[in-house]
Amino acid sequence: MIDPLSILQDIVKEGDTKIVLLILDGLGGLPLKGKTALEVAHTPNLDRLASLNSVGLIDPVLPGITPGSGPAHLSLFGYDPIKYQIGRGILEALGVGMEVEKGDLTARGNFCVTKDNVVIDRRAGRISTDINKKLVLKLNEEIKEIDGIRIAFTSGKEHRFVIRFRGEGLSEQVTDTDPHIINRGILKSTSTIDDESAQKTANIINRLTEEASRVLKGLDEPPNGILLRGISGYPEIPQFPLIYRLKALSIATYPMYRGLTQLLGMDVVTDVHSNEEEIGIYEQSYNDYDYFYIHIKKVDSYGEDGNFDSKVKEIEEVDRLVPRIMKLSPDVFAVTGDHSTPATYKAHSWHPVPLLIRSNWTRISGVSGFSESECAKGDIGRIPALYLTSLLLAHSERLDKFGA
Amino acid sequence: MIDPLSILQDIVKEGDTKIVLLILDGLGGLPLKGKTALEVAHTPNLDRLASLNSVGLIDPVLPGITPGSGPAHLSLFGYDPIKYQIGRGILEALGVGMEVEKGDLTARGNFCVTKDNVVIDRRAGRISTDINKKLVLKLNEEIKEIDGIRIAFTSGKEHRFVIRFRGEGLSEQVTDTDPHIINRGILKSTSTIDDESAQKTANIINRLTEEASRVLKGLDEPPNGILLRGISGYPEIPQFPLIYRLKALSIATYPMYRGLTQLLGMDVVTDVHSNEEEIGIYEQSYNDYDYFYIHIKKVDSYGEDGNFDSKVKEIEEVDRLVPRIMKLSPDVFAVTGDHSTPATYKAHSWHPVPLLIRSNWTRISGVSGFSESECAKGDIGRIPALYLTSLLLAHSERLDKFGA
Repeated sequence: MIDPLSILQDIVKEGDTKIVLLILDGLGGLPLKGKTALEVAHTPNLDRLASLNSVGLIDPVLPGITPGSGPAHLSLFGYDPIKYQIGRGILEALGVGMEVEKGDLTARGNFCVTKDNVVIDRRAGRISTDINKKLVLKLNEEIKEIDGIRIAFTSGKEHRFVIRFRGEGLSEQVTDTDPHIINRGILKSTSTIDDESAQKTANIINRLTEEASRVLKGLDEPPNGILLRGISGYPEIPQFPLIYRLKALSIATYPMYRGLTQLLGMDVVTDVHSNEEEIGIYEQSYNDYDYFYIHIKKVDSYGEDGNFDSKVKEIEEVDRLVPRIMKLSPDVFAVTGDHSTPATYKAHSWHPVPLLIRSNWTRISGVSGFSESECAKGDIGRIPALYLTSLLLAHSERLDKFGA
Repeated sequence: MIDPLSILQDIVKEGDTKIVLLILDGLGGLPLKGKTALEVAHTPNLDRLASLNSVGLIDPVLPGITPGSGPAHLSLFGYDPIKYQIGRGILEALGVGMEVEKGDLTARGNFCVTKDNVVIDRRAGRISTDINKKLVLKLNEEIKEIDGIRIAFTSGKEHRFVIRFRGEGLSEQVTDTDPHIINRGILKSTSTIDDESAQKTANIINRLTEEASRVLKGLDEPPNGILLRGISGYPEIPQFPLIYRLKALSIATYPMYRGLTQLLGMDVVTDVHSNEEEIGIYEQSYNDYDYFYIHIKKVDSYGEDGNFDSKVKEIEEVDRLVPRIMKLSPDVFAVTGDHSTPATYKAHSWHPVPLLIRSNWTRISGVSGFSESECAKGDIGRIPALYLTSLLLAHSERLDKFGA
């Protein structure tokens, strides 16, 4: 695959057209009794758009590769997910809704149990989220700063948490303290380059690890240590509004998607809680933006839960909102997912994702509806998700010719 | 195209699932009276699997590129055939069934005719294979060793042969002696880098060329010289069982396919002579391996011969063996070819190759059977063969998610 940014930077132009990208997270599925959730769902609005416009399938990364939400979304926005890898720490921080900014360092943490200086349980028996919150509260009280660097813990689920380091001179060129297997000691973080900031950061991480052990040992819960990994800073990534010359609004109910689009430089709506409200924000903001990313989370959640019927109903609910999107006549309206999450598989999967593009410049797919099987016969064929943004820009007449 | 190995190395995991890859060499065809050999063949078993599972088309290298068997197979095994080029000498050595090991050097040779120190026929009038064998017998008797390096000749067809050099300090950084056009002298091999081994190797090749001329001039046949090209050693190539964490068995009746899979580190069955026997070996070895490569040669051979009807019959014979493969319930069963060999074209061709994947995690293609035209409508679409291995690993649940 060729990085489309290498071409687009020379041919993107301004315009007054509008693009709406509606992402049903985990949209693609697998058949249950012969039909996928999307095939079972009654979706007259999407079906009509599909038959009269362009449809196809997209691969989030490569055929066979199941993506996490981070790489899958980068691809949807035209960023090569292999070239632009966002650190685990920063993604987790975004996922728990932690506010991060340039210069911060983040790490994914586990509460663990050690015995005789050896890790015997990397997840501390998967303690409850309630216990986790209690421990994090105490850690935040007891460890506020090390060597001038401010420390903040935020709880995740069960044994998981995120740490944010804030202050001058931090570096992500340091190693994990998580040994990744049991019966080893907690590792000392070391710098991976000969650099003062990296050495200072490694020292802070090691001191933090000791202090956290001390605090935890004083509490009446199983965890007596912490393991850190995915230590990563705020990434340097080309800014979406600049590279595509699009005033972009991100409308999502979950922190992870808000955080990711914030990294890309989009304006992010923070006070929105339902699909209905998402469409309401779109309507209110319509005149102020060129590009709208609208993210529907629950299609994926029901897939992960193995709840086929609820996935069907969620898709149907989204279909009922489609006329409100179309009513404002955006120049380009695209509907797809970031990846597949079949309810029968109960996890993200590698299967390609249905794509629908409506604009004044589409061919007519002639398919009978919007589904995995119909999109497989579509006029777009099967393409990398990485090329979706180029297509949306083209359909919105925001690209010049390449070459004379 | 992205090299999938760059991603897979981080996400491949162990499993207890089984993968069967059945390769009908040269499977793809072109229509004769409106139908291809695969379309004419009565293949109820493959048709049923195709309609209930996933089908599509694969490109061995790139659209329009006709591959040799080497690159075509590398691609099927997930090795970028442009990045991993196996030298002509080593491929020819494998093709004639010559045993090679690390440190050996191999070269493809032609018997030629020279006059006044100039090559006037690069193929010595395409002498018969019988004469070739006679000459090779004599060369092996007369030239056993040069400068401590053992020399072995093996006959190919007509004017073709292979040489193997075995001993310490050989280098493939040397030039051909074959001028590639007539009316030039036999070239002196020279080293292409400033290196003692390469200089020594070039000297040995030049002395061998002289001695071979001397031997041939004493015989009563037209050839009076040899031309060497594709001088290549045993390649450094990532080992299939290590990179994919698969215990892999190669079941093939022809030396070339055995040799190639041996280079990749698969276990190779050496005593198998028919399609039936191949399936028997698969059955006997089922519990001992994770991955079975089963290679059916004759589909390609009949294509090369222009024997449309025999290609049909061979495909039908394979179809009758399919229930025996399925009876052991492998988790993933894939059927495809390494390239197309249309009987009307009598040669390898560039046309994409039908692909069928059966697993518990496929969509339902809904096509009417296994053929070029039905696969073109399939749910997999048209993908590079390079991504097939990633897909098989995904379907066998042997890949973790890429990114968080």
